[in-house]
Amino acid sequence: MSPIRAVFVGVGAMASLAAPMLIDKEVQIVGAVGRSPGKVGRDAGDVLGLDRQLGVPVEADVAAVLSSRPVDIALVATSSFMADVGAHLAVCARHGVNAITIAEEAIHPWRTSPRISADLDALAIEHGVTLTGGGFQDTYMINLVTTLIGAAHRIDRVVGRSSFNVDEYGPEVARDQQVGRTVEQFEAWLAHADRPPTFGDNILDAIAAASGLTITDCTTTTRPDLATAEIRCESLDLTIEPGRLIGFTDVDTFETAEGPTLTVELSGRIYNAGETDVNDWRVAGDPTMHMVNPDVDTQRATCTQWVNRIPDVINAPAGLTSVDRLPPMRYRPLPLHHYVDRA
Amino acid sequence: MSPIRAVFVGVGAMASLAAPMLIDKEVQIVGAVGRSPGKVGRDAGDVLGLDRQLGVPVEADVAAVLSSRPVDIALVATSSFMADVGAHLAVCARHGVNAITIAEEAIHPWRTSPRISADLDALAIEHGVTLTGGGFQDTYMINLVTTLIGAAHRIDRVVGRSSFNVDEYGPEVARDQQVGRTVEQFEAWLAHADRPPTFGDNILDAIAAASGLTITDCTTTTRPDLATAEIRCESLDLTIEPGRLIGFTDVDTFETAEGPTLTVELSGRIYNAGETDVNDWRVAGDPTMHMVNPDVDTQRATCTQWVNRIPDVINAPAGLTSVDRLPPMRYRPLPLHHYVDRA
Repeated sequence: MSPIRAVFVGVGAMASLAAPMLIDKEVQIVGAVGRSPGKVGRDAGDVLGLDRQLGVPVEADVAAVLSSRPVDIALVATSSFMADVGAHLAVCARHGVNAITIAEEAIHPWRTSPRISADLDALAIEHGVTLTGGGFQDTYMINLVTTLIGAAHRIDRVVGRSSFNVDEYGPEVARDQQVGRTVEQFEAWLAHADRPPTFGDNILDAIAAASGLTITDCTTTTRPDLATAEIRCESLDLTIEPGRLIGFTDVDTFETAEGPTLTVELSGRIYNAGETDVNDWRVAGDPTMHMVNPDVDTQRATCTQWVNRIPDVINAPAGLTSVDRLPPMRYRPLPLHHYVDRA
Repeated sequence: MSPIRAVFVGVGAMASLAAPMLIDKEVQIVGAVGRSPGKVGRDAGDVLGLDRQLGVPVEADVAAVLSSRPVDIALVATSSFMADVGAHLAVCARHGVNAITIAEEAIHPWRTSPRISADLDALAIEHGVTLTGGGFQDTYMINLVTTLIGAAHRIDRVVGRSSFNVDEYGPEVARDQQVGRTVEQFEAWLAHADRPPTFGDNILDAIAAASGLTITDCTTTTRPDLATAEIRCESLDLTIEPGRLIGFTDVDTFETAEGPTLTVELSGRIYNAGETDVNDWRVAGDPTMHMVNPDVDTQRATCTQWVNRIPDVINAPAGLTSVDRLPPMRYRPLPLHHYVDRA
């Protein structure tokens, strides 16, 4: 068994958090791709905030990096949506490289981006690699939930509530969450025909798929979360006046042919002092059920799961897949290459 | 696909709760075995408290029931320990019948009852059937926990706390939990060489096995839980004076070669008014993690999982197995025979 060779596509906040975890689990960082002129050309260890250089520069072109060295997996963190991240996943597939992205839509993208998903699946199968989405939702919003409701005799309604602090995920996510906008700007944006699908939809798609539920109707409402006092958004270097957006909450609800209703309320906003991430799931049915993860470290848990899934992605059959189809994620006390199947 | 044919071995409180769930999921109750002279010979529907007769009597002999009709699975609920329940599982295997028991030790019995486990495994393989333990621990104390810690980069210490209301599980469990004894009687019992293994050990064995952890040391301490005021134990028809036992708490701790320490505190006692079951797991590590199921319906959740696991047990390879080796339990909206693989 030899160490896993990984490439970061995207060298922002999440890659910087994940890099020490990779090193600790003996995954070799053999390449890094970034866009910013301030990062390209510098040593990846410096850009990722490590205490040592890695001997590989941050480069601007994914294809150039993947065609110039052997790579087992790409860790993709460039955007939240398939329309953007799909191109990077396609380049990985064409170069015969497995990939796992933390793009939120990628957690279960088939219904919200059917054409991109079908194209990526065909490309991945053609090149014998696995592409998938991972991150925070994997355990906390999908696999813990499908495991919990697997213990029910009957579920009538599942309601999940989760929040994350926008300010921990860099400026891209903060801009996506409309931080600093006025309510009027938010509503104009919301009414726009090209609004990307909500991430809650992708989470509920995964839960429904794992639970044998057939979606018959989906509704989404979105409410703005407003600053009640002046508050800082560090990632945008912006002070937000009261009445402007600190983020928003998407409320996605699915009706199913089998009866159960599934709802997820996903809030991404700037937190007030002392506020923490909570993951809370309530099940009405037989029996009633309730599961809470108080004070979740969403940011680190995003990266731990991005990293821990690497062997599962390498081991999985070729194609575009999702975390509900992968084996249950297990604790990995050994270096990650010990968990790679040798076929 | 034809409906699954099940036999109850043990027709007490748990079988009575599970029976309507079976009927609702189109599992046929084709036989029932009991010991009590007040139950043997009566219609199983009457004994199980159903609103209709089932047309099968409660019989006293497991072998006679299993040899006289086709049976797909036996649901065994006669005792908490392998030393007792093993004989029933062996009879099931010899008759070519799969079995799932809610005996607490059976959830992962290899280390605490190695000889019985090895014999049952050989017998099950010889006869091409699957034997396993299931029930409350399956999801709440094993699979939710292994899923949660699967998201950790590093775990240092896992501490689980769970309690159940002894009075909801019938007189056998109440007697096992020493309800009504004096502290002196409890300590004399505790010091006795033949004390059965604690159930927390079996839970931690399953968590360790699923998480790639090698047990190097196990310690168990047991503290009595005492009545602070006069309290009723309905299942024993007993009024307990202050200072006598309402149950006890086992604290099991495993050290592992890989580093993490695993602890479970399992309290079985008579509850005071308003007290509910709580399942609480805290993980020290990277990141810290916490999962709570407040107000658990342990009794119903024991039976829902006993029933929901039926297709997994029928589908599993022959042998003695455990819930950490079965597929993740999933919600089953359809009658249970729809989930049986047709090989």
